[in-house]
Amino acid sequence: MNRALIKRFSARDAEILPSLFYNLKADLPMLPKPPLHPGTGQPIQPSDLEPIFPKGFIAQEGTMERYIPIPAEVLEKYAVYRPTPLIYASNLRKSLGTPAHIFYKYEGVGPMGSHKSNTALMQAFLAAQEGVETLVTETGAGQWGSALAHAGSLFGIKVKVFMVRVSYRQKPGRRILMELFGAEVKESPSEATAFGKTLFAQDHDHPGSLGIAISEALEMATQGIRSKYSIGSVSDAVLLHQSVIGLEAEKQMAAAGMEPETIIGCVGGGSNFSGIAFPFVRKNLVEGKNIRIIAVEPEACPSLTEGELRYDHGDTAGMTPLLFMHTLGKDFIPAPIHAGGLRYHGMAPLVSHLVTLGIVKPKAYSQEKIFEAGSLFYKTEGILPAPESSHAIAAAIDEALAAKKEGKERVILFNLSGHGFLDINAYAKNR
Amino acid sequence: MNRALIKRFSARDAEILPSLFYNLKADLPMLPKPPLHPGTGQPIQPSDLEPIFPKGFIAQEGTMERYIPIPAEVLEKYAVYRPTPLIYASNLRKSLGTPAHIFYKYEGVGPMGSHKSNTALMQAFLAAQEGVETLVTETGAGQWGSALAHAGSLFGIKVKVFMVRVSYRQKPGRRILMELFGAEVKESPSEATAFGKTLFAQDHDHPGSLGIAISEALEMATQGIRSKYSIGSVSDAVLLHQSVIGLEAEKQMAAAGMEPETIIGCVGGGSNFSGIAFPFVRKNLVEGKNIRIIAVEPEACPSLTEGELRYDHGDTAGMTPLLFMHTLGKDFIPAPIHAGGLRYHGMAPLVSHLVTLGIVKPKAYSQEKIFEAGSLFYKTEGILPAPESSHAIAAAIDEALAAKKEGKERVILFNLSGHGFLDINAYAKNR
Repeated sequence: MNRALIKRFSARDAEILPSLFYNLKADLPMLPKPPLHPGTGQPIQPSDLEPIFPKGFIAQEGTMERYIPIPAEVLEKYAVYRPTPLIYASNLRKSLGTPAHIFYKYEGVGPMGSHKSNTALMQAFLAAQEGVETLVTETGAGQWGSALAHAGSLFGIKVKVFMVRVSYRQKPGRRILMELFGAEVKESPSEATAFGKTLFAQDHDHPGSLGIAISEALEMATQGIRSKYSIGSVSDAVLLHQSVIGLEAEKQMAAAGMEPETIIGCVGGGSNFSGIAFPFVRKNLVEGKNIRIIAVEPEACPSLTEGELRYDHGDTAGMTPLLFMHTLGKDFIPAPIHAGGLRYHGMAPLVSHLVTLGIVKPKAYSQEKIFEAGSLFYKTEGILPAPESSHAIAAAIDEALAAKKEGKERVILFNLSGHGFLDINAYAKNR
Repeated sequence: MNRALIKRFSARDAEILPSLFYNLKADLPMLPKPPLHPGTGQPIQPSDLEPIFPKGFIAQEGTMERYIPIPAEVLEKYAVYRPTPLIYASNLRKSLGTPAHIFYKYEGVGPMGSHKSNTALMQAFLAAQEGVETLVTETGAGQWGSALAHAGSLFGIKVKVFMVRVSYRQKPGRRILMELFGAEVKESPSEATAFGKTLFAQDHDHPGSLGIAISEALEMATQGIRSKYSIGSVSDAVLLHQSVIGLEAEKQMAAAGMEPETIIGCVGGGSNFSGIAFPFVRKNLVEGKNIRIIAVEPEACPSLTEGELRYDHGDTAGMTPLLFMHTLGKDFIPAPIHAGGLRYHGMAPLVSHLVTLGIVKPKAYSQEKIFEAGSLFYKTEGILPAPESSHAIAAAIDEALAAKKEGKERVILFNLSGHGFLDINAYAKNR
């Protein structure tokens, strides 16, 4: 068969879909500083987290095992959309006139159009296992909230979502997606929590932030009966679940007969980035490879490139453990950019740690630049990317143009974390 | 590997993606009555079509060859999204409590979210081959228009689209998708054509219809220089291109170790239905199988179930050849239902022929019923279906419930022609 045809590098699906998650912590030369109890300032104990998370989740948060089996019930749900395709961006390549080989892993084929189901399904499963009846969470752009609403409906869990007000108003479609699953969606800051009320009273049009929405979700989750909190990014366990992205990509790149020299993902809390990157970080750490790994964030919310590295709360009210991470401060309210999923003041501690170790290079792009990149990608590859994912595209284009300047055949792999069918208005405004 | 995991029945992609289109006409015991010249009333000659279509397209419209090679340039574009997944609907099955095995072929992973790219890419390629610079077309819900806009942008062809006014207003997102590719989109009836002007003058809010939009597109296409008309359904060549759906499904069902006993597709002009069905019609005709084949249309536009079988024009102005088909009359204006892609007064002559021969059973469903089916599918399978595709789902559910009543393990395969991410407002209104 014609070589040009081999664009979707999947071998038999069952050979590509992993049956184990990969835990980068098992291969790190040193661990990040531990989370601290917000009251005592002492390293957090698993039991401290029990009011917040299901026990199965807490175990995965703390595990040092290298590989964690994916339960059959979750694998069965993954198999509906995984393995996701790895695609060779031949049209984008042509339009850039670059000798670089550009590949993207397309997570937009996930049920709700993004990578978020990878952890949502796992979390809903773990919760259902121990009789949890309600999961409460926050969402920015709504990708996470809709993924959890879907997962909850599959595993018989009621889902309540605090949606950042600016996204709630920009993206009504995502709210409807959640409600169609039977989820309850509140615009945050809301009047449903003590913390939300104080902010809502000050300003009924308060744009909200992920930090505020997390506080509201935590408050409601910990006050309810058989109710727990569910988190879409940042935590070690979430990053563990997302490793399926990179594990598949590793096998698919091998099937394509190419080794990536540069890996790119966008970062908000760090989950899709870690998903694509960590299995390749392993290659750097364990196999002595020298893969360049780039995390791309918005200039409007530059935690890695301009934040401080220090202990800070994951939420605005200061209810979460203190996390050692790059932060813009828990009270930071980012501008209402369209990449709502990247509007987070902090960063996954594991990603911050890799930046500190020099293993991950951070980069920031403007909204203008990422819409330009997203539009070019759409015109050439025919997929409308989510504004979040367009950050990765913008960096991939810059890398491909650098390779052109140097006349080098670099191999670039980026994660296309989601599609933009629900962000069309943003494209209409930014064309 | 766990049997439950084998939900996406693809073997190696390159083994599933067909390299030939299948032409049902080569296996028909008798052909449908030929199209007639609108002026002379005589059977149409290929040369009569030259002002309208590219010559390569006309050749495919008339061919009696059983298999037609797919050009390498088109296969390369297909390979970005094909083979599309065949999915076992285990969650839907569970919720219905049926012993039936329900499979769906998911065309919503196509670039613009539907099956329409299968013929759009081929038509843009054929046009580019002979120096055509502009393709003009019509679109209902916008799935066809956006697929052609995408294909045109890949093959360097300017695309102009007349979009039925009611859909233009219901689905602004689809218009933006087309415009982002550089396509020109006009709301039809428009002032850009003589025919459109007469209707627009009578009523500036004229809801339009596919028949009217076709007339406008034909008028503009035939008056332009190096400009041709492109059609999204109905014609034999379009049905030929769509055969990739059923050809893949055939191999994927074999990989799943099951033979479908019932095949279901929704019908407007007939293209996605024919795509899934014709390779299985072949099994009935050539291999002596007895597969039930069901075409589902909206009650609001019931050409197969309530239309007359006679010669009629494909468009409202009477510019197209006379087609022998089930028709509600070229002046029929269907109610503004959300399944804009099914609001067509006529039917593909080949589909009408199969209904006449008793090989295809037609069925009609109400909008209420299809939104109910679509919502249940969404809640169980996690994919929001296009309202068009929900017609097929509704029939699949009824078949599965009938199997439950009889206590039989029927194998049902339906085509999920597209996703509904751009139809969320319709779901919001119909919940």
